[in-house]
Amino acid sequence: MRNLLADLRAALGADAVASGDAIPERCLTDWSGVTPVWPLALVRPRSTEEVSATLRLCTRHRVPVVPQGGLTGLAGAAVPLADAIALSLDRMQAIESVDAATRTLTAQAGATVLAVQQAAAAQGLLFGVDFGARGSAQVGGALATNAGGNGVLRFGMMREQTLGLEVVLADGTVLPMLRPMQKNNTGYDLKQFFIGAEGTLGVITRALFRLHPAPVARATMLVAVADFDAALALLGRLQARCGAGLAAFELMWRDFIEASMAWQQLREPFDQPHALLALVDLDGPDEALLRAALEDVLGQALEAGLVLDAAIAQSQAQASAFWKYREATAELPAHMHPPVNFDVSLPMAEIGRFAAACRAALDARWPGHTSVFFGHVGDSNLHVSTDAATVGGDVPGLEHLVYELVRDFDGSISAEHGIGLHKKPYLHVSRTPGELAAMRAIKAALDPLFLMNPGKIFDR
Amino acid sequence: MRNLLADLRAALGADAVASGDAIPERCLTDWSGVTPVWPLALVRPRSTEEVSATLRLCTRHRVPVVPQGGLTGLAGAAVPLADAIALSLDRMQAIESVDAATRTLTAQAGATVLAVQQAAAAQGLLFGVDFGARGSAQVGGALATNAGGNGVLRFGMMREQTLGLEVVLADGTVLPMLRPMQKNNTGYDLKQFFIGAEGTLGVITRALFRLHPAPVARATMLVAVADFDAALALLGRLQARCGAGLAAFELMWRDFIEASMAWQQLREPFDQPHALLALVDLDGPDEALLRAALEDVLGQALEAGLVLDAAIAQSQAQASAFWKYREATAELPAHMHPPVNFDVSLPMAEIGRFAAACRAALDARWPGHTSVFFGHVGDSNLHVSTDAATVGGDVPGLEHLVYELVRDFDGSISAEHGIGLHKKPYLHVSRTPGELAAMRAIKAALDPLFLMNPGKIFDR
Repeated sequence: MRNLLADLRAALGADAVASGDAIPERCLTDWSGVTPVWPLALVRPRSTEEVSATLRLCTRHRVPVVPQGGLTGLAGAAVPLADAIALSLDRMQAIESVDAATRTLTAQAGATVLAVQQAAAAQGLLFGVDFGARGSAQVGGALATNAGGNGVLRFGMMREQTLGLEVVLADGTVLPMLRPMQKNNTGYDLKQFFIGAEGTLGVITRALFRLHPAPVARATMLVAVADFDAALALLGRLQARCGAGLAAFELMWRDFIEASMAWQQLREPFDQPHALLALVDLDGPDEALLRAALEDVLGQALEAGLVLDAAIAQSQAQASAFWKYREATAELPAHMHPPVNFDVSLPMAEIGRFAAACRAALDARWPGHTSVFFGHVGDSNLHVSTDAATVGGDVPGLEHLVYELVRDFDGSISAEHGIGLHKKPYLHVSRTPGELAAMRAIKAALDPLFLMNPGKIFDR
Repeated sequence: MRNLLADLRAALGADAVASGDAIPERCLTDWSGVTPVWPLALVRPRSTEEVSATLRLCTRHRVPVVPQGGLTGLAGAAVPLADAIALSLDRMQAIESVDAATRTLTAQAGATVLAVQQAAAAQGLLFGVDFGARGSAQVGGALATNAGGNGVLRFGMMREQTLGLEVVLADGTVLPMLRPMQKNNTGYDLKQFFIGAEGTLGVITRALFRLHPAPVARATMLVAVADFDAALALLGRLQARCGAGLAAFELMWRDFIEASMAWQQLREPFDQPHALLALVDLDGPDEALLRAALEDVLGQALEAGLVLDAAIAQSQAQASAFWKYREATAELPAHMHPPVNFDVSLPMAEIGRFAAACRAALDARWPGHTSVFFGHVGDSNLHVSTDAATVGGDVPGLEHLVYELVRDFDGSISAEHGIGLHKKPYLHVSRTPGELAAMRAIKAALDPLFLMNPGKIFDR
């Protein structure tokens, strides 16, 4: 071990290798809440070549590596291992180029999502992925988890933003898959393997993203829908009428609205309480035309009994007021002790039935529990947050109940956040034995010594 | 060998296994023009279970398998091998379900692209991929080559249509990765590996596609642009103004237009000849608004000197007339002896320079040659077709010249059509040794006996 650290210091410089107390506390865990772990050392390379040198040395010494980005992951994939090096990308933050003519951006993996968004905006362009942790999350980590967030309905996940990737394999081999062409069918599209692999197949060092034209205008509306099937029908009508301009379709169940009003001192949005609210954003070239389109759809939806009440924002301030109901999630840690957050996806048509079944099962098992249901329903993603204190602290029991129900509904135990450490025990709910065997075979092929982030997603 | 055929007949029924003269001639090669090859037998399973049984038996007997779809591939990936079984999906053509509420469609791999398009249209929906061979090409083959075509600018390739896939591995293991959720981060997204793998990692048996709302209205325009950089600037302005409604942006160089007019008896589209024409399709909810948007962009582009002349179609008939210039490609085999077709992609900003450099190099080597340049430039794809008779029949020399130039420009030797057999010798132009090694490792992991379509994309 001392030999490895000495070799690393010799190769990268002593300032690039920290051990013991010199390792910052923030690097000991991520936002998943897993107990902090001291790695053997924290290594901070400045370039792809230094990442390659680091991995070559770790391979030579047979020491595992845990890649770390912004440490905002919610599943524990970046939590160190006591017998491993933690490899941080935080010194590789450069936005290397933004090409407005071809709408592409190249960045090192340590650049934050916010920095990439800002670099795009400076050229009148938009980066398609956005989520709350944008100021700390790095694009490398976002790629490793195939992060989603607010823009998926319109722009897809991190995968759909990615034209090229540079990755370093466990043995130090650099794969420079950075060609910018959207069409490029030359054998296996290797970059696809590393997106969503949570650092278990290699270290992402650079990415080439596509950008989108910046939205010119946006219209927002808040809608009380009759029930979930009505919400789905409204979504379909909006898709048909507004095409690819539909930027957000969020659903909030009554419990979530009540919590939101209580935690943020907000009033009822409509004259009466409603069971289900939809929050809609629509992008396009002209605000008046967008509002007219929404009015058009709303008028027909009201007649059809899909919609019970609705309000179209007449100003940015009003749009922000509508979104404030949705942003209660930031208050969860303050009001739940602690919140147990589920990030599941279901076949879209089943989300309403799942939410009802889940609530009923929780009510039966833990009468008086506090749970809120909400989510990016337009892309199949449902979030459930339950106050652990109201289920007697029985988090394993709670997770078991919810994930068994997810299995019954053929859903996914992880829509966005990934498997990491946290959801490893439940991976079998969403993947067959044949799939798990294939994943292990891929892992063995690209990381034969099992050094890349071992124990994340699955065990050996 | 006789044992394998006997086992296959016992498992699938004698009518599912043809050998010798009973094998239809069409199954002996694909549209690549490679010399026909008789496989050991042609096997036509009726279900995923029968595909699995076939592969289990071939594994037991160590006999390779060449999957076959519609046989419209242009790189030779479906050409049989003399010592292999040809496995045809043509008895698995079912469109199993179309869900208008969630805009998804499930089909067996043998369904044609046209059948899928029609099933979607019957529900007022659109399948995002379209190309000329739609009536024969099967979705399994289109997935195996990650086919692109006309709709890539708006909807992406086959990869972007695919929410789920069912694949059978060489040993018969069925991977049922058919969950419809757009967000599903549960370990490696295995389905991504098989898309574009040209049958070398497993047999695709079923797919779950996303559909799009059917376009309500479309506007078409033909534009004479000043030069390639002007074309790129016009594309950028259209993207910014029209957002995701931009459905097509095709470029035709002068030689292509002249050939088109000669082969199809068409007149000059404008008062004078122009060096470069762009053909634009724009989708949206209202035709008048679309034309107004195009007029808007055109007006500013004319002032800026980007555009020299333009015409916006005032009717469907006129739109078809504009597209007829582009459809000269159907005439290539009749007028070139034979045509040598290049399907390359370049960094978008370089396409103009590449086209000029390529023409100059061809002129220098073969004065008086006939070549036409055209393409789906909006997604980086350039096509070049050269009359082999005008380069003295020196196809290897021609390919070498063009692909070396592609390498110089950091382009891809195959934008859409795949590597198959035809482009195997040039794969190194577009992939590094590290990438090729990683591909071979993946292949060895999922097909350790090297039975799946051996010799396609790369050799052992």
